[in-house]
Amino acid sequence: MIASDVRLVDHHCHGLLFGALPAAEFRLLATESDWLSIDGIETLDSPFGLGIRSRCAPLLDLPRHASIADYLARRDELGAPEVNRRLMAATGTDVLILDTGFTASDVVSPSSMTGELGIGSAEIVRLERIAEEVAPSTTASGFLADFREALQRASAGAVGFKSVMAYRTGFDIPDSPFTAAEVEAAAAEWLAGSDPEAGYRLDHRVLLAHVVWEAVALAKPIQFHVGFGDSDVHLHLSDPTRLTGFFRATRASGASMMLLHCYPFIREAGSLAHIFPHVYLDVGLVSHYMGPSAGSAVRESLEIAPFHKVLYSSDAYGLAEHYLVSATSWRSAISRIAEEWLVDDWLTAGEADRIVEAVAAGNARRVYGLGNHGLNDRVLEVRGLDGRR
Amino acid sequence: MIASDVRLVDHHCHGLLFGALPAAEFRLLATESDWLSIDGIETLDSPFGLGIRSRCAPLLDLPRHASIADYLARRDELGAPEVNRRLMAATGTDVLILDTGFTASDVVSPSSMTGELGIGSAEIVRLERIAEEVAPSTTASGFLADFREALQRASAGAVGFKSVMAYRTGFDIPDSPFTAAEVEAAAAEWLAGSDPEAGYRLDHRVLLAHVVWEAVALAKPIQFHVGFGDSDVHLHLSDPTRLTGFFRATRASGASMMLLHCYPFIREAGSLAHIFPHVYLDVGLVSHYMGPSAGSAVRESLEIAPFHKVLYSSDAYGLAEHYLVSATSWRSAISRIAEEWLVDDWLTAGEADRIVEAVAAGNARRVYGLGNHGLNDRVLEVRGLDGRR
Amino acid sequence: MIASDVRLVDHHCHGLLFGALPAAEFRLLATESDWLSIDGIETLDSPFGLGIRSRCAPLLDLPRHASIADYLARRDELGAPEVNRRLMAATGTDVLILDTGFTASDVVSPSSMTGELGIGSAEIVRLERIAEEVAPSTTASGFLADFREALQRASAGAVGFKSVMAYRTGFDIPDSPFTAAEVEAAAAEWLAGSDPEAGYRLDHRVLLAHVVWEAVALAKPIQFHVGFGDSDVHLHLSDPTRLTGFFRATRASGASMMLLHCYPFIREAGSLAHIFPHVYLDVGLVSHYMGPSAGSAVRESLEIAPFHKVLYSSDAYGLAEHYLVSATSWRSAISRIAEEWLVDDWLTAGEADRIVEAVAAGNARRVYGLGNHGLNDRVLEVRGLDGRR
Repeated sequence: MIASDVRLVDHHCHGLLFGALPAAEFRLLATESDWLSIDGIETLDSPFGLGIRSRCAPLLDLPRHASIADYLARRDELGAPEVNRRLMAATGTDVLILDTGFTASDVVSPSSMTGELGIGSAEIVRLERIAEEVAPSTTASGFLADFREALQRASAGAVGFKSVMAYRTGFDIPDSPFTAAEVEAAAAEWLAGSDPEAGYRLDHRVLLAHVVWEAVALAKPIQFHVGFGDSDVHLHLSDPTRLTGFFRATRASGASMMLLHCYPFIREAGSLAHIFPHVYLDVGLVSHYMGPSAGSAVRESLEIAPFHKVLYSSDAYGLAEHYLVSATSWRSAISRIAEEWLVDDWLTAGEADRIVEAVAAGNARRVYGLGNHGLNDRVLEVRGLDGRR
Repeated sequence: MIASDVRLVDHHCHGLLFGALPAAEFRLLATESDWLSIDGIETLDSPFGLGIRSRCAPLLDLPRHASIADYLARRDELGAPEVNRRLMAATGTDVLILDTGFTASDVVSPSSMTGELGIGSAEIVRLERIAEEVAPSTTASGFLADFREALQRASAGAVGFKSVMAYRTGFDIPDSPFTAAEVEAAAAEWLAGSDPEAGYRLDHRVLLAHVVWEAVALAKPIQFHVGFGDSDVHLHLSDPTRLTGFFRATRASGASMMLLHCYPFIREAGSLAHIFPHVYLDVGLVSHYMGPSAGSAVRESLEIAPFHKVLYSSDAYGLAEHYLVSATSWRSAISRIAEEWLVDDWLTAGEADRIVEAVAAGNARRVYGLGNHGLNDRVLEVRGLDGRR
Repeated sequence: MIASDVRLVDHHCHGLLFGALPAAEFRLLATESDWLSIDGIETLDSPFGLGIRSRCAPLLDLPRHASIADYLARRDELGAPEVNRRLMAATGTDVLILDTGFTASDVVSPSSMTGELGIGSAEIVRLERIAEEVAPSTTASGFLADFREALQRASAGAVGFKSVMAYRTGFDIPDSPFTAAEVEAAAAEWLAGSDPEAGYRLDHRVLLAHVVWEAVALAKPIQFHVGFGDSDVHLHLSDPTRLTGFFRATRASGASMMLLHCYPFIREAGSLAHIFPHVYLDVGLVSHYMGPSAGSAVRESLEIAPFHKVLYSSDAYGLAEHYLVSATSWRSAISRIAEEWLVDDWLTAGEADRIVEAVAAGNARRVYGLGNHGLNDRVLEVRGLDGRR
């Protein structure tokens, strides 16, 4: 089955950490929770924990199913750079499309990822970060133009954008852009309500939607965090069908809408991808956090969306274990699905291979303009793609 | 297993097209989207596309898995009437309960369906259409009586009604009927806001609920579009549990409530069917659009609802391919489920057959009063049912 | 596989009926509906009906798959006490944590359950009941103190609390407790709007949330009814992610939050249990009502939550058949899941056993402080646990 060695384009992921990692920090990176389990309970007594012990341990020369404690000890012994190289090589990834939203964090940049790992990379710009960077040196009346200029500058070096609106207010974007006066009024409120010493955090309802509309004008893919994620998400407000009117309004804009993760709204996301020619989905993030159950998410993502609308991502962050468990879970899940469809004679083996390849890489290459070998004449920032297999 | 040849009553479907069909129009009919895929991408690179190529192609003398292009060429060659006859015969359907809501379209009438195909038919009247037909010749003060009279007239020739409120405002029906004054005020607003030249479209929140309450008084089944469908549905507003109060208020009305399609609210619909003796569900529409995954929907529809509350429908529209892929997918899905339950000794083979038959046809015959042979002394409009097996 | 004989702690259930039960009453207890099916239709033509006929009938010396009528006749012949003993013994339960919310009903008390069945029991106090008991003898200004005192008194004899807010207003709890003035104003409204003759029913939005906040202060587990249940639940208002802010506010309170049943919000509940260290879930109630499909719910409950956050319950009420079908369905479901994970080498057989035991009993023992043998120095009300295996 092609899925065991098809090359991946991971269309939404984050940089790795290359420094030493205390056990508690590893555990916190290995859950979406902001807190360890209560005293005496192993935080990684979880589906993802099974993934680390069964999928990653052997790549670190440990017996399969080694304990978390043994795994962490061996990880320290090898050092993060070696662990990262081993696990990332085993993912079979050709291109990493990296969200560089957390600038203050220790995860490395796209160029460092390519330099350290020999894997091509491209960049996604987080919309809220641009606004937050502009804030200290702009005014209410200057915000619209200053943000626009900053976004264009950032856009030149990126293959797309990301919105984390789901974490701030839930999905709420009007069907048409705001007027300049509305943006100015909102910027005045936001700037007046922010403390420059504490740093700016874009949480203004109008501006969160405004920055998305600004990105639409640039006609590159826009990624939306959807559903399960950090502790600040209110799931019921992050149902992507709340964006139906916005999707209708932007259908012919040239901007593709990428629904990320989507748990537990996978069917909602698939329905939108069925209806709107510019809407896509993936089931990253849960691809590793669901561990042995990841196939349930992959399966739902293939229920109703056309096959050219489903993508692969890991949403890995900091840990190569995210990347490895995602990739192996996805490979075995889609292989199993394809085999079932073959047994029931829904398609030929050649078609199954074609669909698997499209989800693994082809759809992302097309939407992000990456070209067949990862080279991209539009986006020079795709790095280090020559000379690989 | 009985499911491979049990006869079907398709309790919600639409007329077929019998004329020549350009390729682009076929593709648009073969998706719920209003738009083709972006340039260079096959719109039918989709689960339903696999269904057409694997399930329909052999019935048109093509190799299984023929390309969409080859399929369309062969379809043209045979002509729609012959294609319709071949595919419809293979569905194993005894009665088509046809929603005649789209009067302006080219799909044929119930009597033409029976005449062309030799399959019995009955009619469902779309509530909004009756209101829209009454509008040009009524007044605000006359609307209540004029609509009521028109509905009674239409009702005489129909086995039930349909509401597409989910597409207009989402589900929003108060627990008791409106007063005459409220209806008059709403009709005044609607009529004043409509352009007779452009045609009337019932989108007034009060009137959409009023026409449902009028149908309740006639004590026939009322079908509700639920969930996934055309591009104008806002999924999160079409959760059928928003009708809980209305269902409580109508429990003893004599009107059955038929929840159609229900994706992704199948579990919600099943929960309502469990609680309210007059609420039923099906998983039509996705039965073909999910292609190889249709079994997931069928499986969920059987989780929590009593077996006498689940029905079969295709929601086919225009294309016999909808009918054929729905029927074959449903047959293989329910067969597999029944086999699993048998293996785990949850029931006897006889009980499995009984349940399959009830979902396939028996429940619909009972609810719509169709009788054992499709003859229906209450509903004379069930046509052409004599002499068939 | 350990799951076939692992001992259970049923962390949310209700007393049994030990008196004679007319057929219609049995049927009404065997559905969440408040009404029998329409004339001529067997109410238990349902997934749970299959469970009774296939799982319970043989334990009453009937052939497997006996009809409901034969089952009820044999049940009468044996008498409820003997039926209860046979079926409960077959569940393999060590401790019943009983919700004693319905004081007016005929189901027996925790001490009677232990006395009749030889199974240990502990008590859950329903918050709304305490308020309703306090109401006749309090005043608006006295309510806060009187309720607090009554709750403390009840709490001494209980291992936790239960809220049925989902049935009354849906989930709606502010992120901080109300002020004394707010509680007094709400109590004044509630008491003035209630008819002492008819009895008090706590349906005031502020008070429903207030009683939960009062329970938080006592630092014992609080159970929340979530999702599918009686006919008065509005499912879309009982999505547990509406409690996200409340969970954030109570994370370090010492009170655990137990999400019960959760259908169809199992993935939402699992997401919350992943994020918040003090949130737990189960899939009781549907464990019997889904009959052959119960495995779907069990499977989803294990997708994203850590394994130390998932519990077993039946939510059985009145009928030992609830207990028996829940237990056997859960055992076969979790066995199948564990076997699949073993085949795919996600864990060792020892780990599978450990996880199954934790969900079956260990997690509940830890959260409710039951101790290894059901003895609990904190909660003296755990009864009758000595001398059992």
